Amino acid sequence: MKIVVIGSGTAGSNFALFARKIDRKAEIIVIGKEKTMQYSPCALPFTLSGKIPKLEDIVVFPTEFYEKQKIKLLLETEAKAIDRERKVVVTDKGEIPYDKLVLATGSKAFVPPIKGVESEGVFTLKTMDDVKQIQNYIKERNPKKALVIGAGLIGLEGAVAFREIGMDVIVVELLEHLLPTMLDKDMASIIQSHMEEKGIQFRFGAAVSEIIGNPVNAVRIGEEKIETDLVLVATGVRANTELAKQANLEVNKGIIVDEYLRTSDPDIYAIGDCAEVYDAVTGNRILSQLGTTAVRMAKVAAENIFGRNVKFKPVFNTAITELFDLEIGTFGITQERAKKEGIDVVIGKFKGSTKPEYYPGGKPITVKLMFRKKDKKLIGAQIVGGERVWGRIMALSLVAQKGASVEDVAYSETAYAPPISPTIDPITIAAEIALRKFK
Amino acid sequence: MKIVVIGSGTAGSNFALFARKIDRKAEIIVIGKEKTMQYSPCALPFTLSGKIPKLEDIVVFPTEFYEKQKIKLLLETEAKAIDRERKVVVTDKGEIPYDKLVLATGSKAFVPPIKGVESEGVFTLKTMDDVKQIQNYIKERNPKKALVIGAGLIGLEGAVAFREIGMDVIVVELLEHLLPTMLDKDMASIIQSHMEEKGIQFRFGAAVSEIIGNPVNAVRIGEEKIETDLVLVATGVRANTELAKQANLEVNKGIIVDEYLRTSDPDIYAIGDCAEVYDAVTGNRILSQLGTTAVRMAKVAAENIFGRNVKFKPVFNTAITELFDLEIGTFGITQERAKKEGIDVVIGKFKGSTKPEYYPGGKPITVKLMFRKKDKKLIGAQIVGGERVWGRIMALSLVAQKGASVEDVAYSETAYAPPISPTIDPITIAAEIALRKFK
Repeated sequence: MKIVVIGSGTAGSNFALFARKIDRKAEIIVIGKEKTMQYSPCALPFTLSGKIPKLEDIVVFPTEFYEKQKIKLLLETEAKAIDRERKVVVTDKGEIPYDKLVLATGSKAFVPPIKGVESEGVFTLKTMDDVKQIQNYIKERNPKKALVIGAGLIGLEGAVAFREIGMDVIVVELLEHLLPTMLDKDMASIIQSHMEEKGIQFRFGAAVSEIIGNPVNAVRIGEEKIETDLVLVATGVRANTELAKQANLEVNKGIIVDEYLRTSDPDIYAIGDCAEVYDAVTGNRILSQLGTTAVRMAKVAAENIFGRNVKFKPVFNTAITELFDLEIGTFGITQERAKKEGIDVVIGKFKGSTKPEYYPGGKPITVKLMFRKKDKKLIGAQIVGGERVWGRIMALSLVAQKGASVEDVAYSETAYAPPISPTIDPITIAAEIALRKFK
Repeated sequence: MKIVVIGSGTAGSNFALFARKIDRKAEIIVIGKEKTMQYSPCALPFTLSGKIPKLEDIVVFPTEFYEKQKIKLLLETEAKAIDRERKVVVTDKGEIPYDKLVLATGSKAFVPPIKGVESEGVFTLKTMDDVKQIQNYIKERNPKKALVIGAGLIGLEGAVAFREIGMDVIVVELLEHLLPTMLDKDMASIIQSHMEEKGIQFRFGAAVSEIIGNPVNAVRIGEEKIETDLVLVATGVRANTELAKQANLEVNKGIIVDEYLRTSDPDIYAIGDCAEVYDAVTGNRILSQLGTTAVRMAKVAAENIFGRNVKFKPVFNTAITELFDLEIGTFGITQERAKKEGIDVVIGKFKGSTKPEYYPGGKPITVKLMFRKKDKKLIGAQIVGGERVWGRIMALSLVAQKGASVEDVAYSETAYAPPISPTIDPITIAAEIALRKFK
């Protein structure tokens, strides 16, 4: 069997490795535009701050690693078209025939059509090249002020990085609070206060209408002109679906796939940021666009190409980050989105400490859990705290994936030791609070 | 209703608080031998090392707190007998009638009948008084060498505390490796090496036959005489069942209760260290004797006394600790115990890093998962690593409590961010390794 993968990012690279693990003989060819195989886009903000000292380190495996696994790499090669009748990928360097094709074309930064957005000093943060350009600009121009458009994960992580290397930072967000798709306002405000204490300013419900100067020296928000030496546009990503569209595959916001990750052509699969998945809570088709989702799709697609018939489960979009001294973890639906979707929820919210009262060093932690009113299932969680948020969001997410009810969480057995966690964990208390509202 | 609780430890104190939350009017009386209400016995080793600076701080709530909740406390009072016909508790200060009685009599340190075990300088580590005595002895005698009998949790935490305050420490364990009920030998050896590097010595398969000197100056192991200035006996605890036995309730190693936590007398409940629970893996009756189990039993008993009919679920004995720079987490059955019990298991074991390769500061972590061969269920986990063990054991335990299979874990959605965890989590890799063995 000859398997061709278009895309050398997280999804494509992991697919090739999983496929090779399953079958030692299949011919596996990866076509990629970039010079390297998979690197971690989530790591880019941390290269900017210097927490990851060398940019090149984020490339997960060198090309030789793939070659040793007998995965054929066609890097710096662009797929131009798919001829589904002849089962051939047309590239700028010739035609590649396939038995099975995997689209792992990824996503690109979305840049809104703001006047002046093409000026020098305006960046996105989606690729290694973006980081190189920002780093060069910082070296050459020594900017003192940065303005970030978009208070999503990348925007905030970028804002923290700029602040950590000594710049004044303003974050401008069209919606009413930070991380608007992941958190409710009450939880976002905890993070906002912390980031403000660290010297980052926020403007919510605000849009940049113009970027002034080339190189940039200011932006306009309504009547106001705000000086800045650098602009980061972090307004989300869009799925790369051009090839799929041109090949007449079914495409919505992303490429449409069935639960086995096959597109409308059964010999073509789509995985990672370019493909739509099902939301575990609403059942809607969504773009998940998380690294973990890409890897899980890669694994399932590899198994299905070799006939294993594994269904890809709907996603909860479990996510975690660190912003200064806070950890933030979420999954599932927010209270705000539940309202929009017409889903009645019962909330359990609790603020406690990460350690028993008597043990020094405990930090505040706030847990907010969303349970669906009609069946008591855990359908969302938001946790913000000074430490050990990750473990709690992992535990809640895994058990939600297994269909946990409010009783399951409220009566669950947790792991306690004085230096690590309280006897009665904040997650079980939050669930108890919700449980009482059910009664 | 008049509810009498015998025991002011974790189970009894929490029961009183839960009961009060459910019912504002019931008369609630707690009879306790000690001067204080609940304190955390798990915290005692950390008071010894000074990590918890003040011993008194481990008392969770002052007596006034309970009194404000209209919980009547009879402290420094000893229950001598239960007259089930008259429904009366006989104490050294008079008789207390009850409608419902809750036995939360706890456990006591088990001290094996070693020659010389009554000598000065020989201690247990189960109560605040034990800590006071050890601290006084250290102040007066300035011991340089400590010998710990028993390599369970309390023994090892005690050993670490002695080492951290500058003593030479030897740990003597009858069985073949440390934490013998919680870990297999391969996992225990990781911890052993780390503790040896920190200067603690171990003797396995060895028993102390005599404690020499008064105050102690040596112990005998077989032919060998080992000098020591202090001995800590940490050979487990025994349930306090005397009252229950005297009242002719059904008693095994602990007081026998049904799934609603009622003893053989339907007006008497038993909770915490003194009562037996069901093991989630084997279905056997066991003594769990964890703080988390005590609290959960307290909650369920309180609900049942007020007619809510909540079943207490079998326990996985989820536990966590910190020993020097390692976190150790476990639940369920070990490979060694599975063999003894005749349960066929499939193992998934993986050693990885707590962070992505490219992110500085990642620490080694080893994950060992046990799945039952006949139904693929996750029935045990052992994790040892430099950080973020707690979150993984929490996640695995909660999902095991919900009946997770090897596929559930292998395909689970985890939470990834470069500073916090790898894209593909060690727990999913360990499950994948097991999954391949099933095929």
